[in-house]
Amino acid sequence: MLENLKEKVLRANLDLVKHGLVLFTWGNVSAIDRETNLVVIKPSGMSYDEMEAKDMVVVNLEGEIVEGKLRPSSDTPTHLVLYKAFQNIRGVVHTHSTYATAWAQAGIDIPNIGTTHADYFHEAIPCTTDMNESEVKGLYELETGNVIVQRFENLNPVDTPGVLVKNHGPFSWGKDADDAVHNAVVMEQIAKMASISITVNPQLTMNPLLIEKHFYRKHGPNAYYGQ
Amino acid sequence: MLENLKEKVLRANLDLVKHGLVLFTWGNVSAIDRETNLVVIKPSGMSYDEMEAKDMVVVNLEGEIVEGKLRPSSDTPTHLVLYKAFQNIRGVVHTHSTYATAWAQAGIDIPNIGTTHADYFHEAIPCTTDMNESEVKGLYELETGNVIVQRFENLNPVDTPGVLVKNHGPFSWGKDADDAVHNAVVMEQIAKMASISITVNPQLTMNPLLIEKHFYRKHGPNAYYGQ
Amino acid sequence: MLENLKEKVLRANLDLVKHGLVLFTWGNVSAIDRETNLVVIKPSGMSYDEMEAKDMVVVNLEGEIVEGKLRPSSDTPTHLVLYKAFQNIRGVVHTHSTYATAWAQAGIDIPNIGTTHADYFHEAIPCTTDMNESEVKGLYELETGNVIVQRFENLNPVDTPGVLVKNHGPFSWGKDADDAVHNAVVMEQIAKMASISITVNPQLTMNPLLIEKHFYRKHGPNAYYGQ
Amino acid sequence: MLENLKEKVLRANLDLVKHGLVLFTWGNVSAIDRETNLVVIKPSGMSYDEMEAKDMVVVNLEGEIVEGKLRPSSDTPTHLVLYKAFQNIRGVVHTHSTYATAWAQAGIDIPNIGTTHADYFHEAIPCTTDMNESEVKGLYELETGNVIVQRFENLNPVDTPGVLVKNHGPFSWGKDADDAVHNAVVMEQIAKMASISITVNPQLTMNPLLIEKHFYRKHGPNAYYGQ
Repeated sequence: MLENLKEKVLRANLDLVKHGLVLFTWGNVSAIDRETNLVVIKPSGMSYDEMEAKDMVVVNLEGEIVEGKLRPSSDTPTHLVLYKAFQNIRGVVHTHSTYATAWAQAGIDIPNIGTTHADYFHEAIPCTTDMNESEVKGLYELETGNVIVQRFENLNPVDTPGVLVKNHGPFSWGKDADDAVHNAVVMEQIAKMASISITVNPQLTMNPLLIEKHFYRKHGPNAYYGQ
Repeated sequence: MLENLKEKVLRANLDLVKHGLVLFTWGNVSAIDRETNLVVIKPSGMSYDEMEAKDMVVVNLEGEIVEGKLRPSSDTPTHLVLYKAFQNIRGVVHTHSTYATAWAQAGIDIPNIGTTHADYFHEAIPCTTDMNESEVKGLYELETGNVIVQRFENLNPVDTPGVLVKNHGPFSWGKDADDAVHNAVVMEQIAKMASISITVNPQLTMNPLLIEKHFYRKHGPNAYYGQ
Repeated sequence: MLENLKEKVLRANLDLVKHGLVLFTWGNVSAIDRETNLVVIKPSGMSYDEMEAKDMVVVNLEGEIVEGKLRPSSDTPTHLVLYKAFQNIRGVVHTHSTYATAWAQAGIDIPNIGTTHADYFHEAIPCTTDMNESEVKGLYELETGNVIVQRFENLNPVDTPGVLVKNHGPFSWGKDADDAVHNAVVMEQIAKMASISITVNPQLTMNPLLIEKHFYRKHGPNAYYGQ
Repeated sequence: MLENLKEKVLRANLDLVKHGLVLFTWGNVSAIDRETNLVVIKPSGMSYDEMEAKDMVVVNLEGEIVEGKLRPSSDTPTHLVLYKAFQNIRGVVHTHSTYATAWAQAGIDIPNIGTTHADYFHEAIPCTTDMNESEVKGLYELETGNVIVQRFENLNPVDTPGVLVKNHGPFSWGKDADDAVHNAVVMEQIAKMASISITVNPQLTMNPLLIEKHFYRKHGPNAYYGQ
């Protein structure tokens, strides 16, 4: 079932490796079929070298395995919360990519200080708050999804397709698995450039007009940009 | 028409990739034929993998498409302003390369603190001022060219073949497309080294004699340098 | 003798190169056979390009060569001290990898500020104290092992499978040679991310709940994690 | 003449590229034959891709071309001063490698803060003083050699086989061309690690006992080290 989607999820996972976002098995991509509400996700702990499309695991939104011989990624509950809360997304990515993870460890939002950022993310890339004891000791991976959703209470997940989970790492999403990977690559590059910018000039300022211009020339009804 | 120039512009665009200056499609190179005043530029949003010489777009200095089936790069109006204002240049490059973009986001000039810089740029690499509301909401890409030209009111674009557009990224130019790419690569390397230097010693000093010596042993009538 | 183990130690040494942890010959891996108490280790000063399994040197825990035509790595006495003191380890790695060595030069522990760290190391990665004159001028390589063991007086080497030797570099270990290399790669990545995190936000805070959660979902009797 | 040495100098120049120390043509290696006092050096401005052994230029210690159709590197006078002043060296390298050049721009010595440094350089890697007007406007490349030699008034060039020329970049040397390249690679790595170390802990301290131990276990009559 969903053989096409399995193939796409496999290739999206391999793209994480190609873009240098994962070390060992530290990353996972999923995609959802919105008609059947089934999610295809990478199996747990499997090496990228050996992975084939048939190894992808199919789960429903309750996290039950519908097809597949392997265990789904341990982060599956986080993905499922995001698919339920953010109705317009169809792909989710989690990595421990170097610079985005470093900002997550720093525990602060990545400020929107350039057009590269504004081309993809309307706001600062938000960082979640500390998880409390019942969240961490309870259904931890599911609660990780919940703290992300709480952080987006006043944010539009389509305009800000990524987040930093404090002291953990980045999650990103998009209109499909490829788009979610694309946003993960962009987030890593934005995180790298921002860390250099604030080192070079801690008093830097952003021109807010550029955020509106760059975001809306690429997104929404009046978009005209494709460099 | 201009088949040779299309081939050169294609190869210059691919050189950006080879030198690690572009992620996805975030960069563009153009060249002008000063006899006909026609500009050859990369098409908008096309993947570097698929690009062929025949995909290059030919526009006139008013931005009208003279030949080509694809849309020219969205940054075309910026390139055209530069060709009109800086009569001695025949190639223009725009990238979001990591370190140069980080300095553009920092919003400050890259100081001339070494002979690597002085071999290619006589002055600090200047950063433009904030664009105002009418510039950003008006003909934005054209006005981006205008703020660059304003920044060069007291600078010679041949002696300082590049600029940082504040909160955006670098533009560079040269006597042809290859030279403009060469200067883009140099600017990225200078930006990287400068960010390390000022971290290591915020009180560093430059010997101004070295700027004159290195710039003029490589440029102008008394040049003798070619390492 | 121990031909299988020689092959594993060879491949583990080559993996250091593959992961970018060594320049020239600056690294070594060993493994112990706990039944015979014999240790297989890389020969001294040999280029990784030329190394074959038969070049691996077999020594006993007193450091006497049991088999092999070449001299064992100069760091052999350090490895042997670790095998004697830490009964549960069967592989040891030493490198001068860039970021871990930079922290060793900085002379401070790498704080546990993220789940990447907590997935592998329960505590901060400890840095040893200064060695004194009799240690440095005496049996220096053996004493290097001793200062590591002293540093672990109140630490469990299985839960914290690595250390920074002050002004020198990292050692790591594991349940076999591959695991020790794996931990060396992780330590380098953790060191890199931590250096970025503290630059971006010197006042960062860690949620201690995450350390317990991440470490014990991957280690010990209740482990369930394999991403 | 000196065909063997030309081959060695060619390969040493190509090794600079292999180790990532040069961009474009920004680097050069030479070697001296102490019997004839002839120096073989890379030609000026030639691409590394096209260079062959026969393109190497032979000059005498007065800088006169003895054999070769091409101009020798513009930095030749600096190399010659070093060969005259430092009788025990037979290879010289100049690069603009990223981190060593960044320290040269910072204008300060690279402190000896680790055993990687102490394995190769007994002292801090020294930075020269500012060159004065007559030096810069006079025989600049020769005077560059002179400020290096002045900086070594109280230093042994064999124990400290490299230098930073202020606001310019690194020179290194060794017992032959390969050794000089080896030291250039080490210097770049030391410069990188030191820049991270002092960012992570500006108050770091070095254990001076380690400098003596590491330097002399690898150099001099009691050396025993070869990792």
